[in-house]
Amino acid sequence: MTSGKNLRQRLHYIIFDYDTIPAKAFDLVLIVAILLSVTVVMLDTVRGIHTAYGEALYLLEWFFTILFTVEYLLRIYASDSGRRYIFSFYGIIDFLSILPTYFSIFVPGTQYLLVIRFFRVLRIFRLLKLVKFVKEAEFVKASLIASSRKIVFFLFFVLVTVSIIGALMYMIEGEESGFTSIPKGVYWAIVTITTVGYGDIYPQTVLGRTLASLLMIVGYSIIAVPTGIVSAEMAVMNEKIESELSSPCESCCSTTEHDEDASFCKICGKPLT
Amino acid sequence: MTSGKNLRQRLHYIIFDYDTIPAKAFDLVLIVAILLSVTVVMLDTVRGIHTAYGEALYLLEWFFTILFTVEYLLRIYASDSGRRYIFSFYGIIDFLSILPTYFSIFVPGTQYLLVIRFFRVLRIFRLLKLVKFVKEAEFVKASLIASSRKIVFFLFFVLVTVSIIGALMYMIEGEESGFTSIPKGVYWAIVTITTVGYGDIYPQTVLGRTLASLLMIVGYSIIAVPTGIVSAEMAVMNEKIESELSSPCESCCSTTEHDEDASFCKICGKPLT
Amino acid sequence: MTSGKNLRQRLHYIIFDYDTIPAKAFDLVLIVAILLSVTVVMLDTVRGIHTAYGEALYLLEWFFTILFTVEYLLRIYASDSGRRYIFSFYGIIDFLSILPTYFSIFVPGTQYLLVIRFFRVLRIFRLLKLVKFVKEAEFVKASLIASSRKIVFFLFFVLVTVSIIGALMYMIEGEESGFTSIPKGVYWAIVTITTVGYGDIYPQTVLGRTLASLLMIVGYSIIAVPTGIVSAEMAVMNEKIESELSSPCESCCSTTEHDEDASFCKICGKPLT
Amino acid sequence: MTSGKNLRQRLHYIIFDYDTIPAKAFDLVLIVAILLSVTVVMLDTVRGIHTAYGEALYLLEWFFTILFTVEYLLRIYASDSGRRYIFSFYGIIDFLSILPTYFSIFVPGTQYLLVIRFFRVLRIFRLLKLVKFVKEAEFVKASLIASSRKIVFFLFFVLVTVSIIGALMYMIEGEESGFTSIPKGVYWAIVTITTVGYGDIYPQTVLGRTLASLLMIVGYSIIAVPTGIVSAEMAVMNEKIESELSSPCESCCSTTEHDEDASFCKICGKPLT
Repeated sequence: MTSGKNLRQRLHYIIFDYDTIPAKAFDLVLIVAILLSVTVVMLDTVRGIHTAYGEALYLLEWFFTILFTVEYLLRIYASDSGRRYIFSFYGIIDFLSILPTYFSIFVPGTQYLLVIRFFRVLRIFRLLKLVKFVKEAEFVKASLIASSRKIVFFLFFVLVTVSIIGALMYMIEGEESGFTSIPKGVYWAIVTITTVGYGDIYPQTVLGRTLASLLMIVGYSIIAVPTGIVSAEMAVMNEKIESELSSPCESCCSTTEHDEDASFCKICGKPLT
Repeated sequence: MTSGKNLRQRLHYIIFDYDTIPAKAFDLVLIVAILLSVTVVMLDTVRGIHTAYGEALYLLEWFFTILFTVEYLLRIYASDSGRRYIFSFYGIIDFLSILPTYFSIFVPGTQYLLVIRFFRVLRIFRLLKLVKFVKEAEFVKASLIASSRKIVFFLFFVLVTVSIIGALMYMIEGEESGFTSIPKGVYWAIVTITTVGYGDIYPQTVLGRTLASLLMIVGYSIIAVPTGIVSAEMAVMNEKIESELSSPCESCCSTTEHDEDASFCKICGKPLT
Repeated sequence: MTSGKNLRQRLHYIIFDYDTIPAKAFDLVLIVAILLSVTVVMLDTVRGIHTAYGEALYLLEWFFTILFTVEYLLRIYASDSGRRYIFSFYGIIDFLSILPTYFSIFVPGTQYLLVIRFFRVLRIFRLLKLVKFVKEAEFVKASLIASSRKIVFFLFFVLVTVSIIGALMYMIEGEESGFTSIPKGVYWAIVTITTVGYGDIYPQTVLGRTLASLLMIVGYSIIAVPTGIVSAEMAVMNEKIESELSSPCESCCSTTEHDEDASFCKICGKPLT
Repeated sequence: MTSGKNLRQRLHYIIFDYDTIPAKAFDLVLIVAILLSVTVVMLDTVRGIHTAYGEALYLLEWFFTILFTVEYLLRIYASDSGRRYIFSFYGIIDFLSILPTYFSIFVPGTQYLLVIRFFRVLRIFRLLKLVKFVKEAEFVKASLIASSRKIVFFLFFVLVTVSIIGALMYMIEGEESGFTSIPKGVYWAIVTITTVGYGDIYPQTVLGRTLASLLMIVGYSIIAVPTGIVSAEMAVMNEKIESELSSPCESCCSTTEHDEDASFCKICGKPLT
């Protein structure tokens, strides 16, 4: 019993910690295994490689899947609360990333969904200086959330624009130019406004080209809008961090006598804590 | 008479309000109807779907048009001032979005203009926290207006550039490469400077490729200009909002007694003037 | 003699001023003539239009050229100093924009250079509120000058990158994929790094595609650099303008007694003028 | 012996200095030679030119290589410490830029790697006002380093996205549309998310086009993220430089007598702490 508990504790240290050397080694091995397993799935779809090494890759795929299955079960066993792990973000990713291989027995082709394993590499941020990276991620996240309403508004505007331009192009260009339906026109408009421009469909009439030119210039100009939004938001956030770091000035506020009712230093205006 | 007035008032509450539950339900039903009706128009242009379900989609299109016609008339009836509603932004959109179906009886093909109905979805912002979204929209709008003169100046520069490059490419490349006229050269220059790059026309001589390379690098560099303009404008605007939030708070600083040597309010930390 | 001087003065008012009604009318007529003349040159290159209206367009082209020649001579006559006008920015543009038609008598095809006339439209900014637009132009110009060294540095980096990648792709892909020489490889690299992507040349080997992917991601990431440079520069410039507008605070500095040796107000820290 | 030392010193002045006229002349000749030698290598790959001038270009290539070899040896001889020069950034570049020609005797085709000589042009910044350019370079470098963690995080997100979308497109589109393997799907996803859009591979099914549209809009939106990061970082850096320039000037504030009630230095306007 005690040894069982000890095993569990040791497992917990290895799997869930990230400061100790065995935990780091475990993470490193895990990430290499993940990258290898995704590479195996990807390479297996290349015809030449499949013909030559198909069987070996198939075995490797099963080897990694079984490995990750064992790891998944150990994680449930070693976690403080199995249920909490299972329904956590990583728990779900871990589960989804073993499922496709088993599923492919019944429905061939689904094993390609294994690329979801890539998400497991998020753990890599544990190996690097964790806290700092989490901060960066949270910075980007916070900026995006702060600007999300503006971006939703912007995307809605883009959506309406491509729908209307798509319908107009369908009417102007017609089937000869490849605009065989409004949805296809909308698809073309998205390809154009985002400046991807495959060239599989393109206007061929004078009116169509004029409208397309307008759309391109609009697309080129409005890229400034989301960029501006996010830039401005990040600048504000940077400033907040700066001002937080530089707020209570020790030198002034510790030498000054503050009135009892003061919430701010009357000399330098810094908030008193 | 009174019941008529009551009916009108009740309609007004349902149609024009957005805080009550029946008004929200009405808006939600309306938006679903709009999205469905646009989808019907779009799908009807896909050949396979048209052959199979053309008649049903035709009937649906008329169903939605009549529905929106009734709604339009009710809006006129229920609004405080029919005339003001008719000539308001939403009134015109509502009118234009029922017109194409009736018009298509005389001129087939015009029903595709129904995609204008998409603009009616702007009402969706009423369902979400209205005021906040209006603020975001106004923020984007104000930033764009503040930077509009700079952007007009920039677009003029782009226009002159593409005209001159378009003419030069027509002279350099000629008809074999697809540059069959100056307008087509200008169209190519727009496709290139906006980095869309369909590939339907492209330079094939050494001189043409060199000029194209220059245009691309210019295009790639000057995208920075409108982005910079809008970003800077938005940063200024963000700062204004911030400083408005933190500007000398009347309520505090006029009721507090300040020490003679105080440069900052000791209660709220605002600088004293 | 006096009437000659009067004529000259009157011409000067009409041609070089921009506040009076006749001067504005003159500018407006001029701009319409410029746009029409460029349109004539452009349309004449469209085959269908050339066949049908070629002769009429040819006459129109000469009509506009003679008109602009007369205007050019009048400008020299009416200007305070003919020489200074001739060698000014506008003087050179005006001269260059009549030259191609005369030149095309000897070398056919050069008339297309008439598109340079577009630059004359810069005068349009005189019709609009001149001073404000000049300010905007100067703002953009100043920001670009302030960031020009950083952008030159950036362009040099881009140039070295595309040269090296272009040479590598020539070695990897070879002639079958269209990479027939290093200059063509460099051209492809420019098309790719600027995200234009015509698709006339593209990698077809695994190694080539991998290198291309790297180049794309680099190109996609470094677009941030010039944008960031210009944005930051414009933000700084905006702040300077703001702080200039808000510097000497009347309320404080006019009521305070300043020491004789003070360059700044000792209460609010604003510079004293 | 003394003359040997003198020669060495004179060489050192010419090669490693950049303020004197002979040193500047040497740098200028060097840069012209570098640009010419790279042009020679590039032009030699153009078939027409190779046929006509192949032999002359071959001789020129060897001429430049021997020239640079002599220069390299002189640099080692003239430097204060030969070893330190050899292992410095420029030393390695100088060595690598003569190697390919010698190497091409054994392995033909490797001479194209000579384009690495381009890096030697970095010396050009010595001719221009050196210190300022180094500052600009350091500014860009510092901004990129400050935002590197955020950009790594962003690139990781892009990588995971293109892998998953690439695999999905392989499953949806299959071989007929050119998605012959997952790596090719990933390549397509990179071409799309970076808005390059060659058009060599593109979706042809409805589901594929829908997914592609999503990817494009995501790609179009998230370009805002790295731009925002770098812009914000540069804005912060600009501010730091500004505030450093305007930070409490020791020389003034420690020598001035301040009034007791002064919150700001009355000489330089800096806030007093």
